[in-house]
Amino acid sequence: MQLLMLIVLFASVLGVSYAVFNFFTVKKMKEGNERMQEIASAIRIGANAFIRYEYKLVAIIGLATAVVIGLVIAWEAGIAFVIGATMSATAGLVGMKIATYANVRVANVADQTRSTGKTLKVAFRGGSVMGLCVAGFALFGIFAVYMLFGVWEGMLDLSTGVLPTKVNPITGQSYNLSLILSGYALGCSVIAMFNRVGGGIYTKAADMGADLVGKTEAHIPEDDPRNPATIADNVGDNVGDVAGLGADLLESYVGAIMSSAILAIEIFSHTGGFNSPELLTRMVLFPMLFCGIGLIACVIGAFTLLIKRRISENPHRELNLVTWISAGITVAAGFGLSWLLFDGQDATQLKEAGFALGKLSPWVAASIGIVAGIVIGIISEYYTNYDYKPTKRIAEASKEGSALTITQGMATGMISCMLPVVVLGAALYASFEIGGMYGVGCGAMGMLSFVAATVSVDTYGPISDNAGGIAEMSGLDEDVRAITDTLDSVGNTTAAIGKGFAIGSAALATVSMMSSYLYAFSDLETLLLNIISKEVLVGALLGAALPYLFSGMLINAVAKAARNMVSEVRRQFRENPEILTGDKKPDYKTCIEISSQGALKEMTLPAVISIAFPVVCGFIFGAEFVGGILIGATLSAIMLAIYTGNAGGAWDNAKKYIEKGALEGEGKGSAAHEAAVVGDTVGDPLKDTVGPSLDILIKIMSTVSLVCVVVFSKYNLMSLL
Amino acid sequence: MQLLMLIVLFASVLGVSYAVFNFFTVKKMKEGNERMQEIASAIRIGANAFIRYEYKLVAIIGLATAVVIGLVIAWEAGIAFVIGATMSATAGLVGMKIATYANVRVANVADQTRSTGKTLKVAFRGGSVMGLCVAGFALFGIFAVYMLFGVWEGMLDLSTGVLPTKVNPITGQSYNLSLILSGYALGCSVIAMFNRVGGGIYTKAADMGADLVGKTEAHIPEDDPRNPATIADNVGDNVGDVAGLGADLLESYVGAIMSSAILAIEIFSHTGGFNSPELLTRMVLFPMLFCGIGLIACVIGAFTLLIKRRISENPHRELNLVTWISAGITVAAGFGLSWLLFDGQDATQLKEAGFALGKLSPWVAASIGIVAGIVIGIISEYYTNYDYKPTKRIAEASKEGSALTITQGMATGMISCMLPVVVLGAALYASFEIGGMYGVGCGAMGMLSFVAATVSVDTYGPISDNAGGIAEMSGLDEDVRAITDTLDSVGNTTAAIGKGFAIGSAALATVSMMSSYLYAFSDLETLLLNIISKEVLVGALLGAALPYLFSGMLINAVAKAARNMVSEVRRQFRENPEILTGDKKPDYKTCIEISSQGALKEMTLPAVISIAFPVVCGFIFGAEFVGGILIGATLSAIMLAIYTGNAGGAWDNAKKYIEKGALEGEGKGSAAHEAAVVGDTVGDPLKDTVGPSLDILIKIMSTVSLVCVVVFSKYNLMSLL
Repeated sequence: MQLLMLIVLFASVLGVSYAVFNFFTVKKMKEGNERMQEIASAIRIGANAFIRYEYKLVAIIGLATAVVIGLVIAWEAGIAFVIGATMSATAGLVGMKIATYANVRVANVADQTRSTGKTLKVAFRGGSVMGLCVAGFALFGIFAVYMLFGVWEGMLDLSTGVLPTKVNPITGQSYNLSLILSGYALGCSVIAMFNRVGGGIYTKAADMGADLVGKTEAHIPEDDPRNPATIADNVGDNVGDVAGLGADLLESYVGAIMSSAILAIEIFSHTGGFNSPELLTRMVLFPMLFCGIGLIACVIGAFTLLIKRRISENPHRELNLVTWISAGITVAAGFGLSWLLFDGQDATQLKEAGFALGKLSPWVAASIGIVAGIVIGIISEYYTNYDYKPTKRIAEASKEGSALTITQGMATGMISCMLPVVVLGAALYASFEIGGMYGVGCGAMGMLSFVAATVSVDTYGPISDNAGGIAEMSGLDEDVRAITDTLDSVGNTTAAIGKGFAIGSAALATVSMMSSYLYAFSDLETLLLNIISKEVLVGALLGAALPYLFSGMLINAVAKAARNMVSEVRRQFRENPEILTGDKKPDYKTCIEISSQGALKEMTLPAVISIAFPVVCGFIFGAEFVGGILIGATLSAIMLAIYTGNAGGAWDNAKKYIEKGALEGEGKGSAAHEAAVVGDTVGDPLKDTVGPSLDILIKIMSTVSLVCVVVFSKYNLMSLL
Repeated sequence: MQLLMLIVLFASVLGVSYAVFNFFTVKKMKEGNERMQEIASAIRIGANAFIRYEYKLVAIIGLATAVVIGLVIAWEAGIAFVIGATMSATAGLVGMKIATYANVRVANVADQTRSTGKTLKVAFRGGSVMGLCVAGFALFGIFAVYMLFGVWEGMLDLSTGVLPTKVNPITGQSYNLSLILSGYALGCSVIAMFNRVGGGIYTKAADMGADLVGKTEAHIPEDDPRNPATIADNVGDNVGDVAGLGADLLESYVGAIMSSAILAIEIFSHTGGFNSPELLTRMVLFPMLFCGIGLIACVIGAFTLLIKRRISENPHRELNLVTWISAGITVAAGFGLSWLLFDGQDATQLKEAGFALGKLSPWVAASIGIVAGIVIGIISEYYTNYDYKPTKRIAEASKEGSALTITQGMATGMISCMLPVVVLGAALYASFEIGGMYGVGCGAMGMLSFVAATVSVDTYGPISDNAGGIAEMSGLDEDVRAITDTLDSVGNTTAAIGKGFAIGSAALATVSMMSSYLYAFSDLETLLLNIISKEVLVGALLGAALPYLFSGMLINAVAKAARNMVSEVRRQFRENPEILTGDKKPDYKTCIEISSQGALKEMTLPAVISIAFPVVCGFIFGAEFVGGILIGATLSAIMLAIYTGNAGGAWDNAKKYIEKGALEGEGKGSAAHEAAVVGDTVGDPLKDTVGPSLDILIKIMSTVSLVCVVVFSKYNLMSLL
């Protein structure tokens, strides 16, 4: 049975190898003319410098956390934490590296060939490095942790019929494999939180700052080399939209896989073991293997596009093909996997946990997750794409000034919460019905099983965007910019589906994690959290307020850094009027430093709060209270994430709608356009900093609570009183 | 014991009589010159016309609801519903009437005397009519329902030791007094919902419309008679800020009183009765009597100000004095009441419900509520007043354009959620510890026990505001406007405390109602709602999305009506340029009609959704699911209410801060001021339409669920499958 883990190893090696191949294939390509090289190098240097500082800071916090976990919880969990953090950090770093190489090469190919298809291929090759690394490194880490502790240390040795436990010498608490897997997931989450928050503040501070002065005051177009903040803006795309996104999705991926594996272990140890202990191994292996298969499918999917000699000029079709091939193979092979693992297994024992497990149940649950993710993505597409009414209405409202742009966008974002939640609720209900909370975990895992494909597409967007920036700044032909713009906008549409998966899987994985949390401190065989008890209720109230506090702090951080950026750009324009005439080069470096320092200074507090809040509350008010916090935070964060994501997206596209001249009597530079630009600027930090961070917030909270609950359920202030 | 209810009758008659006296005292005063009379009459006619239409619509929906309740639930509940609706509608109507008489008289007194103190007295006398009517009518209705069904029909006759029940002939379900009391509360809630939503849409559509064209485009000051929307704006103050507010607070008041009375009955019938059945009567009477005493205290408080021959020129001190006298007497006399009712009562039986009740426990719980309400008010004062950092920072950010005004305001609103929730959580925890869920209900009741005083102050604000509008439009001296502006701004500060009470009591009353709801369908002696079960969890997800949907619909409705208003004002300016030069009178009437029709058309759907959503879900998914909806909606709505209220308030005051010239180098008409006006306009529907409606939303949902649960817990689709 354990030998099946070789599939995971194979998949991760295959994925990373293909990523390495693509990396060097891209790097070998020509960079274009001197001006392009110069700009690309400036972006690369800026991005590298920021990541270096960021990782230094994160390394200190991460190591400190690992040591605490190693001592207070379990030394194995500490090591797993470090492995997770390393995988996550590496994936982000590699993705950013390739993005800063690929951007200029994409611009050059577009310039040389004037072919959308050929340019697409380079951009996608760059993106695929990130996508494959995310899944490859995540699975490699899982393989390592599983082998080290599950097999080698024997923590999943079920030959005696019971799950081996160990005892922490300091606290005297016993623990099992689930805690070690949680440690791994937590390591990924912590890095993701810092990368997302830090990168998000960086990129939006630069973006807002550049727009506020450039577009609104100086009336120069985006990416105009006269704008001193423009290089910082492009650096931001790489550290935020690429490195941040990579770490984020790696975290989601690992969280989704681990949540079902951990839950299986908790069910096993709380229902007195199964009739056949081997079923546990199968339940733990299933999500890992399913995702291993998914990665292999994604390699095939990416390969089919990259091998093509003749590529069509319809990038939308090409990218969708990659996604559908990857998803199709995953689902088909997953069917066989589920049959292989669970056929003939005696699952009667599971009925004590409130569900039975047929041979296809985990596969059905995973498929439900996939369908739900796609539907959620389509819904957010409806609310944010200018082909549909809601976004058109925002553009319309812009005629009456920016106040109504904002008001209408807020209303759209708020209204857009209901439908995705209905889909999510239905998926939750159905997957629970099929496989209990384990099924819910499988649903989350299903959504992300072909993450390599979705991340490739997600990353290809910012690479194309950056290529466009470089084309603009180095004065390439307008045709070049048109090609990159097309690629970028296609990426945005396809990425909407990816966002659906991210939010949906975060919600389901958190619920599944929360169940493990409840198992971990209660001796009940059925899960119970009484929301009407005072501890849980007050916890839920505080929990619901936390995402608001967290979001407010992030927005504040962005606004603060953006205001500094505005002052700096204004100062440069004032002191050197030759900048605006194009006779003098602006000082890009100071702007990069402002973004960089703003991000580094402001990212620590919200990130630390998200980790510390449940733990501190646990040590004061105990485990039930934290259970309340988790449920309150989850409910609140899901709504805020959908609201901010869709409102931000709709504002962005309403602006684009006006820019393309679709609004009667209005266009670039009109009053309605200026109002729409205000909307877009307001939406920027909401959709790119706050929204994605909220997904991580709820997972980091549930994971860290799960890791610490064995300690604070015994030792807390309330129990001492 | 029952005779004590005469205190409630006495209080309500005293309150209403004093209100009538004040009404005619105000009405007898002089209206001022012809122009003033003309404007005041236009406002009065507009307000009356809208209320007439609104009440017609509401009467149809209300009567239909009453008939359904009477047939399906209990005929007594149907009648109680009608009584509640009548009381709520009457209070709103009377308050609006006096406001439209008082406004012009306040302007005239200010003009004649040039004394802030004397003007204050007239404005406060007008406001007190509303305040006293709210409490007086609410208590009169409670007295009537109690006497009719509790005493006369004998539903609270405990001589046999058990609570009498009756059976609905159609559904066969048995019910007791608690259902009838719920019917009364629901009647008040439904009217409040329509008044708040309808009035809120009306007033903000007019306000936004007037500002968008007037201030931003035509650059004419607020309340300028050349602005065609200005009369509509002033009508809006009366139907939204006065009639809407009155019905809203009557609903909160009744909800808070009833939640503890109902819960007492539910505890009694689910713990097999108390050792001494009389304890139940005392627990039911306590909140009613406490509020009766509160109303008497408020009459004394108002009297001390209105009797003064010489009134100081410091309105802040005078108004605070009224509030503190009223609150002080209430708390002191409440101490005696609690002692009288509960001294020597055997409360051992209550231990089965998880708490004991000492002779002062209900009083302590009520006092905790009062303190919590004040602290929450002070916190929101901190976040929204320009004397403090958060609002100053928004003003500062306005220098960088409207996008940053919005961003900074959002951040402030989001961050401001945490502290009030901590206070609320602490109050919930403490009052629960002291008196179980009954204590939580008493906490809510305590916050609103002197509602007559807070509503008087709340109403005095819009009256002064309207007086200022009339002064401006009829071209009175600038000194007059200065006096009314002072009065208005003082009202805003004092009203912040009132908002703290409204949000806090809504949260606590809902939690207490929810407990009654749980008792009503489960046979357990301890309250239980397992949030991790699939029904409750999915319900909670949908419930959390509902306040977003509801808010989004309200904002949309306001935006739609405001855009129509903008088009109309622009049309008038375009077709009759003489309007702007002052040579021709604008067409006020069309603007009034736009607001009126917009409100009437848009108010039904959100109001009906709030009532129908839990009921429909109940008949499909059953009682547990609705329990989840209630908890999800409560958590989500509290956060949104605080967020929208504080963000809106902060934007408003940031604008005022710049207007008074406190921001270095900026002032009225500067770029920063224009940005701040955008912020204020965005905040308008948030703080005056959405925020207050959310309080009603959660109470209406919990009350309607409580009324219907006996039916849908038996008959629902899921139980049939």
